[in-house]
Amino acid sequence: MENGTTKKPPTEAVNRWHFGPNDLLAAAGGRTIRGIIHRITSSVDERGPRPLVPLGLGDPSVFPSFRISTSAEDAIVESLRSAQHNHYPPTVGLLSARRAIAEHLSENLPYELSPDDVFITAGCNQAIELVAVSLARPGANILLPRPGYPMYETHCVYNNLEIRHFDLVPERGWQIDLDQVEQLSDENTVAMVVINPSNPCGSVLSFEHMQKIAETASKLGIMLIADEVYSHSTFGGTPFVPMGVFGLIVPILTLGSLSKGWIVPGWRLGWVVMTDPKAILKETKVIDSITNFLEISADPATFIQAAVPQIIERTKNGYFERIVNLLRATAEICYDKIKEISCITCPSKPEASMFVMVKLELSLLDGIHDDVDFCLKLAKEESVVLCPGSALEMKNWLRITFAVEPSSLELGLERLKSFCQRHEKK
Amino acid sequence: MENGTTKKPPTEAVNRWHFGPNDLLAAAGGRTIRGIIHRITSSVDERGPRPLVPLGLGDPSVFPSFRISTSAEDAIVESLRSAQHNHYPPTVGLLSARRAIAEHLSENLPYELSPDDVFITAGCNQAIELVAVSLARPGANILLPRPGYPMYETHCVYNNLEIRHFDLVPERGWQIDLDQVEQLSDENTVAMVVINPSNPCGSVLSFEHMQKIAETASKLGIMLIADEVYSHSTFGGTPFVPMGVFGLIVPILTLGSLSKGWIVPGWRLGWVVMTDPKAILKETKVIDSITNFLEISADPATFIQAAVPQIIERTKNGYFERIVNLLRATAEICYDKIKEISCITCPSKPEASMFVMVKLELSLLDGIHDDVDFCLKLAKEESVVLCPGSALEMKNWLRITFAVEPSSLELGLERLKSFCQRHEKK
Repeated sequence: MENGTTKKPPTEAVNRWHFGPNDLLAAAGGRTIRGIIHRITSSVDERGPRPLVPLGLGDPSVFPSFRISTSAEDAIVESLRSAQHNHYPPTVGLLSARRAIAEHLSENLPYELSPDDVFITAGCNQAIELVAVSLARPGANILLPRPGYPMYETHCVYNNLEIRHFDLVPERGWQIDLDQVEQLSDENTVAMVVINPSNPCGSVLSFEHMQKIAETASKLGIMLIADEVYSHSTFGGTPFVPMGVFGLIVPILTLGSLSKGWIVPGWRLGWVVMTDPKAILKETKVIDSITNFLEISADPATFIQAAVPQIIERTKNGYFERIVNLLRATAEICYDKIKEISCITCPSKPEASMFVMVKLELSLLDGIHDDVDFCLKLAKEESVVLCPGSALEMKNWLRITFAVEPSSLELGLERLKSFCQRHEKK
Repeated sequence: MENGTTKKPPTEAVNRWHFGPNDLLAAAGGRTIRGIIHRITSSVDERGPRPLVPLGLGDPSVFPSFRISTSAEDAIVESLRSAQHNHYPPTVGLLSARRAIAEHLSENLPYELSPDDVFITAGCNQAIELVAVSLARPGANILLPRPGYPMYETHCVYNNLEIRHFDLVPERGWQIDLDQVEQLSDENTVAMVVINPSNPCGSVLSFEHMQKIAETASKLGIMLIADEVYSHSTFGGTPFVPMGVFGLIVPILTLGSLSKGWIVPGWRLGWVVMTDPKAILKETKVIDSITNFLEISADPATFIQAAVPQIIERTKNGYFERIVNLLRATAEICYDKIKEISCITCPSKPEASMFVMVKLELSLLDGIHDDVDFCLKLAKEESVVLCPGSALEMKNWLRITFAVEPSSLELGLERLKSFCQRHEKK
């Protein structure tokens, strides 16, 4: 690829040595949110306004208001100090952690999960990798949401799993276009990814719509991947329902982690759970691929896994209430402020997760080419970082993170407003 | 593959649903040491002698004598309690950890490493994955040692990197057969893996032999992968020399971790370091593949990374001396006991790592088919678990771990001796 576009002859080193880059890896990488936000942040002007306001990533752990309950830290310290958990972990995860997660998730399901249904991963990103690797086979394709979370695209590209996008419809509260799902699917379609509560839309799917999703998937012979990383971050009118409730209709792999509910993304502790009471994943040997993947892939630290039962036990109710109230308040600030900005429209008030998707009205702006250009100029002029919609397959939209310290959020949105006013068409 | 060997028609579930296993993953997995040891351990008879003596894996963290210095634990607790390291880590690793590792490894090199030369991984297994993924490209092959560490084979198979084995020669202190390396190599050979100190041989390469390895690699136009996980576990006459010393001759990726030196394999903290003063890995874009891989792969926990500078700082000298003395003593016990067993011969006294390779004289035994059969029967009759050489590409050899509590080691070797005597040809 690179030889095709360059006119320079290969250098001596390239001639003399036999090794070189993996081009498929280059094609897969470079589209992660972290990579894109890094690029936007790089264009922040050193002489621009300070402090920089980061509304691009979903990681509020650095803000004092989002400081976790110290009881989760206590659990880690106890686990470490016991010196009983310095050994290699079992490849599928520590039994005590698997059991605690099974019990925790069973609370909202019509049947009991067993520890054998739970696989521990190094954060939810590795859970996404597990899904892509386990389901990849020659000719297979997978249905991904648009907008979505680009780590799915990344791992599907690297594993040669063909991607077909279905739309989340802003006018219908970001519901899935299920007619389109049926049209996209064929006999090589293996699965469909549902991110609920939604990153990046901040929406929550209703029980009725989820039932229709499950029935559609069953009819099409495909499984569901339910990304429920934001299950603890719901603060609006629609209650969160785990997809696993529909496990009798269709086999489901549910993805989750400590990262968002406990505001500790750096702890890298996630899981994949089979909500599959009919044991279809066993019969079709998908479970063999999952255990094979875990046998050869990176593990989270054993002493962190060993702390999971105590972490879940000690942060039952009051803790989540505090976080949810905080997210509700920051979402409110965000929604109200955006209403004051004419070139940005928000189709629905966020009621979950840490994000909201807003539409950019380019026709009202002067000298802004697209969403990426908007974000680069905003970063340069106002030191405010947003995530361009293009990164999530939604050109000329923006993803705004409201899970930041309230004072920072207000400052950032005020600067966003100034920026838009300054670039408005006269 | 499976349809070719079974006569049963596909079940209803396999017919109705579109998804199924990833066969390449099945081919790659199932050959890991953990998997094989698990199989051997499963044949331990519940009514057999107790306690079970595990001489299969290199994980002494469970034994009291190998309890780590608590100063490394202190470093983790301080990092966690600061609440400054709950955020997502940078994909290449935390700068402070990269700097500490660069300084630590520079002590034994003729030039200074920079933090940019260091990439943090989730243990050394992920470092091996990084190597296989970064170097994979259509048609490429890699040279691996026989005997070696099967995780290399696993990741090479999954990434379609053709494997060619070169021999370590027991009669020459497990030196590499460099003539064979030259014969095996062609213009599609990208790299050669050197594990020194050796897992599984317990040997250490001399400065002179290492220089020849570097010159051979340079002549062939291939890079070196230097697995130096056991660099802190050398207790014999041959001093350990880091391969990076020869970085001016050939570009080198050095792999290491906290796992073995600090006896904390469960902490999952490893690294890949470029010892490449001529910047050939940059020019050939291998470094781009490394950063692309890290952008999409699992990370070790941020707060563990943040503790690395203190972990290295506080465990400088006395600590390693204690571990090395312990390993020397257990290696001595192992070597002496094996001399008493006629059907097992040890080509050279171990002087490093946690393992020794011994040859099984099948002709002296009755009713034992091969090394795997030997290990299965030994586990069943004596509750002693060893690693069969077949797992490391050395049929009818055994890998014995001496890094266990001395009393357990003596017990296990005594039972091994009884087993051999009982099965000796009359």
